[in-house]
Amino acid sequence: MKIHGRHYRTIWLDEDGWGVVVIDQTRLPFHFETVRLATAEEAAHAIRHMTVRGAPLIGATAAYGVALALRVDASDAALEQALALLGATRPTAVNLNWALARMRRRLTGLPQAERVAAAYAEAGAICDEDVALCHAIGEHGLGVIREIAARKPAGEPVNILTHCNAGWLATVDWGTALAPIYLAHDAGIPVHVWVDETRPRNQGAALTAYELGSHGVPHAVIVDNAGGHLMQHGQVDMVIVGTDRTTASGDVANKIGTYLKALAAKDNGVPFYVALPSPTIDWTLQDGLREIPIEERSQREVTHLFGQAEDGRTGFFQVAAPGSAACNPAFDVTPARLVTGLITERGIAPASAEGLARLFPDLAQGQAA
Amino acid sequence: MKIHGRHYRTIWLDEDGWGVVVIDQTRLPFHFETVRLATAEEAAHAIRHMTVRGAPLIGATAAYGVALALRVDASDAALEQALALLGATRPTAVNLNWALARMRRRLTGLPQAERVAAAYAEAGAICDEDVALCHAIGEHGLGVIREIAARKPAGEPVNILTHCNAGWLATVDWGTALAPIYLAHDAGIPVHVWVDETRPRNQGAALTAYELGSHGVPHAVIVDNAGGHLMQHGQVDMVIVGTDRTTASGDVANKIGTYLKALAAKDNGVPFYVALPSPTIDWTLQDGLREIPIEERSQREVTHLFGQAEDGRTGFFQVAAPGSAACNPAFDVTPARLVTGLITERGIAPASAEGLARLFPDLAQGQAA
Repeated sequence: MKIHGRHYRTIWLDEDGWGVVVIDQTRLPFHFETVRLATAEEAAHAIRHMTVRGAPLIGATAAYGVALALRVDASDAALEQALALLGATRPTAVNLNWALARMRRRLTGLPQAERVAAAYAEAGAICDEDVALCHAIGEHGLGVIREIAARKPAGEPVNILTHCNAGWLATVDWGTALAPIYLAHDAGIPVHVWVDETRPRNQGAALTAYELGSHGVPHAVIVDNAGGHLMQHGQVDMVIVGTDRTTASGDVANKIGTYLKALAAKDNGVPFYVALPSPTIDWTLQDGLREIPIEERSQREVTHLFGQAEDGRTGFFQVAAPGSAACNPAFDVTPARLVTGLITERGIAPASAEGLARLFPDLAQGQAA
Repeated sequence: MKIHGRHYRTIWLDEDGWGVVVIDQTRLPFHFETVRLATAEEAAHAIRHMTVRGAPLIGATAAYGVALALRVDASDAALEQALALLGATRPTAVNLNWALARMRRRLTGLPQAERVAAAYAEAGAICDEDVALCHAIGEHGLGVIREIAARKPAGEPVNILTHCNAGWLATVDWGTALAPIYLAHDAGIPVHVWVDETRPRNQGAALTAYELGSHGVPHAVIVDNAGGHLMQHGQVDMVIVGTDRTTASGDVANKIGTYLKALAAKDNGVPFYVALPSPTIDWTLQDGLREIPIEERSQREVTHLFGQAEDGRTGFFQVAAPGSAACNPAFDVTPARLVTGLITERGIAPASAEGLARLFPDLAQGQAA
């Protein structure tokens, strides 16, 4: 999507055709800077230190990291070493392991002389496929936005609430939850986005607001507390969020606080959609509340915030009373009963075992518990 | 309640018997400092600049401000001038006008020579009555906590979630929502408080956490997004919040985000209580959602946060993407159907017109629309 009027992906090849360039997301939203990755070590560092974040983008960066390693040494040993190095950067990221396994499958059988070119091609394919997947989600979600727009007086914006960042900065382009919004905006449908701040890490206020603003999509940042009130007063037409993991029955794990917005949407008759690339579905799980373990993260994320002081310096600032403990569950589970629909690359499924199985008979059968 | 092992109210007379001392709440939670108010102008300044905040404490400070003015000049003109000065500090504060009207009634008919002593006595009575009212709320709420504690295995703490600051720092002592918690803690009932951070102004993370910590009550700060998840997993036994305004039918206006916690409590069978001094009931209103106007505050409260940098300097830090708009509704309305009970100074009422009228037949009849 666009920044300063120019189209970007989150990862691309440098002009020399082999260096990999990414946006330094640790500097957002206050500074837009790009970083050139020239070695597998630099790619690993970028993942580990969250220069890049978002599962699809992490996978893409790791794939290019393999290509960078093979440029130096295309031997089997070097390949395995690169896979191990990159695989250890963020141990719990599903896309990371998926992308590296795919690179291994593609490269292992090849003659060494062909490996570099094949690695770049495969990494490029991973990126292009992610863009296509997000775009397909966008097209299906666009239909929902179009329907809502058609029911509103002409020119009145469709008000869409989103939580966290499931935008293009977390993917290669388009994003998941934000893809329908970008497509609607680009198609001339008036949209306005309520951006949940998304404490504790503020991905909404920092990243979602940044990318929507850069692309020119009208939006307003709200504290996580405000969405229910806006829904009570008819100021939200729909909710779209992403997901980190969804069960075969349609229970949705997503950033902490998603469940509260789903409750409010239900209480006020506001449709609540989840944008869902099919690799996010865990076909082995049924009961999200019982079966999805929720990561508990550092207390410091609650007590301290990243921001910019008036003198322009950025850093972490304490906001909670000194000495007070904190508790920081990172995700929550929204039961399927609160979800209006799952927007996948194949279409929109009801949030139920039947709904998902009908859309993904190939995947549901193969992997169900 | 206690700070550094010593008992404090939020407002008291200095050792000379006439100067008024308050805690400088703009310096909390990073610095505990007191300020001496020696003139009506200083009292007005303390209210206007939020050195003191919380409706009951604002009323008490204004009452003492009148006494300070009369020390210099006890004439009718000086009295009216002080009432006007103090009344203009926070135009929408109900307790402020109530306290000043009470001071006028008490003082107007008196000979000038008796006014100073009467003013100090009346201001002292306003403080003492607030303490008694909060203590009575605490006693009734304590009964609820006792019952829950009795159903839990011995020694297991009662987990109580609260939102915003309805503690002693907002009143003269005890607080409203926190009064039952202090009484339970002091009575040896193990309690543990989940303190909602309460964005945008962070009264939970800053003030509630500070006062609970200072008094020794176990607690943990959580982001506003986390409460629903904790309730889903049985980690919340009850919710207690305060209120800024409650309708005759039991709809509760309170800090933005309260409604989301009430929805989650309902969805998980967690009792949801509102601590409610009877002067907070607006007997002229029935439908809170339609009839209570919600103040929209500065965008900057959303985009910037008060905190302390690593070098110890405190100030405001930008957290949202530069250039993004924000929207900042300050309160929301929790419908009576989501409220388990209203804890008043006379006892606990169901959140309904009948429930409130039964407990307050004198007030309900006189003022109903």
